[in-house]
Amino acid sequence: MELWYTEEQAAGVRLSLKVSRHLHTEQSDFQKIDVFETPTFGRVLTLDGLMMVNEKDEFIYHDMIVHVPMATSPEIKSVLVIGGGDGGTVRELCRYPHLERIDMVEIDRRVVDLAREYLPFTSKSLDDPRVTLYYEDGIAFIEGKESVYDLILVDSTDPIGPGEGLFSRAFYENCHRTLTENGILVNQNESPYYAEQSREFKRAYEKISEVFAVAEVYQFHMPTYPSGHWLFGYASKGIHPTDNENVDTWDRYGLQTRYYNTALHRGAFALPTYVKEMMEK
Amino acid sequence: MELWYTEEQAAGVRLSLKVSRHLHTEQSDFQKIDVFETPTFGRVLTLDGLMMVNEKDEFIYHDMIVHVPMATSPEIKSVLVIGGGDGGTVRELCRYPHLERIDMVEIDRRVVDLAREYLPFTSKSLDDPRVTLYYEDGIAFIEGKESVYDLILVDSTDPIGPGEGLFSRAFYENCHRTLTENGILVNQNESPYYAEQSREFKRAYEKISEVFAVAEVYQFHMPTYPSGHWLFGYASKGIHPTDNENVDTWDRYGLQTRYYNTALHRGAFALPTYVKEMMEK
Repeated sequence: MELWYTEEQAAGVRLSLKVSRHLHTEQSDFQKIDVFETPTFGRVLTLDGLMMVNEKDEFIYHDMIVHVPMATSPEIKSVLVIGGGDGGTVRELCRYPHLERIDMVEIDRRVVDLAREYLPFTSKSLDDPRVTLYYEDGIAFIEGKESVYDLILVDSTDPIGPGEGLFSRAFYENCHRTLTENGILVNQNESPYYAEQSREFKRAYEKISEVFAVAEVYQFHMPTYPSGHWLFGYASKGIHPTDNENVDTWDRYGLQTRYYNTALHRGAFALPTYVKEMMEK
Repeated sequence: MELWYTEEQAAGVRLSLKVSRHLHTEQSDFQKIDVFETPTFGRVLTLDGLMMVNEKDEFIYHDMIVHVPMATSPEIKSVLVIGGGDGGTVRELCRYPHLERIDMVEIDRRVVDLAREYLPFTSKSLDDPRVTLYYEDGIAFIEGKESVYDLILVDSTDPIGPGEGLFSRAFYENCHRTLTENGILVNQNESPYYAEQSREFKRAYEKISEVFAVAEVYQFHMPTYPSGHWLFGYASKGIHPTDNENVDTWDRYGLQTRYYNTALHRGAFALPTYVKEMMEK
């Protein structure tokens, strides 16, 4: 018997991965969680039937969500991760010895528990002494907080289900207030290619650009996400992501990375014309 | 009944596209050719069951194979396209009024005939008076030619079947000799992500870098090719693709493009670390 995982990435488009073993399935209070083993991608975790993380390409996503903002400022000391239950974002943050405080707010404790059990490659730094885990709604978590974090990383699912409120204007305004003077917000910003994701990309970018003085978007190659062309938003009260001398000195940290480098950092903000046009409208 | 086209992109990875109508199938002297209509990608042409071109994302591939080299030198007057039977590469070349001669060598006349019949969006400039079509083997075509073309574009299939010889060192040496003094070679260089394609990427790059003084690689997002992360090789006797003042003045041509722009031109050469490492070995 052959077992295949199939995801409807967009109308009329399916990606299928061969599965060697279905390791776990459950309906948590928030979503359906599955973990399986594949010959090509290693361990895979899906939420509500959508690819979240796998052993083969998670390095790309986690390099790009963490090292891009971290390279723009050596002043970042405190970071809030919203979502990110697999732990990969925290893992990359923990590689910076100068970070003092890493708070992670994940609404679904079961994702973290299962990542600890099945995905040691992403969850391995969750017990770092600088890390505090909160199993709460990220939206409520930042309500009323002011000038607490230098960096907020929104490592969310798509804007359906529990991730929906993380794409609202009210949420971005709360992020703005929760950030310190030169604070930076990086958010999972979907894809420009298929209509299903580009609609959300445009909506999120439009709102963020109304709230933040600096609002840019950067791209990367994420083979198992729809179209493989994925985006993060970069917003800040004052620090520009590429017109920035700090980027070129990121190598002083001595971190080995498989995707990120400082030339690619600048290159990632050079978007295709059709993507730039989506941001203008 | 539902009809789906399914491609095994790598071991254990399949991309499937919903098909609304299978328009044509035949076994030519060289390969199996299929044309079908899809709701999401419009018209699609496959060779030996592999995606070659479709109406939705062909603009990305054709922008990147043509405008990157064309931006590096206003001196390019004569171009040879090897492969490219769908006509999309010639279409983009024909937008430069200063080009004098565009020769296209496609081994399989049936691909061109079917592109004319079913893919007018790519084939529409094949009757431009500057274009000459040769239905021959591209490898034999350049044998013995010397200093004839300013630019050679290898718009080939994968290195199996009729495209195989287009990935050999002897072929790259023949390209070098066929090019004029500052000549440029751009070649379809596979993908760095899955082993099936990265093996070929590394082999091709290694050979080209032994033959040409300048040998670089650039990347783009091609959603329907395996992993969506695709590469072209850029090689030249003397013109560097990014350390080059001409690039910034490409806008003088007044061409509207949906993917290419000069910032993206430079960004496309900023490769992920794991890809750069593949090029070092």
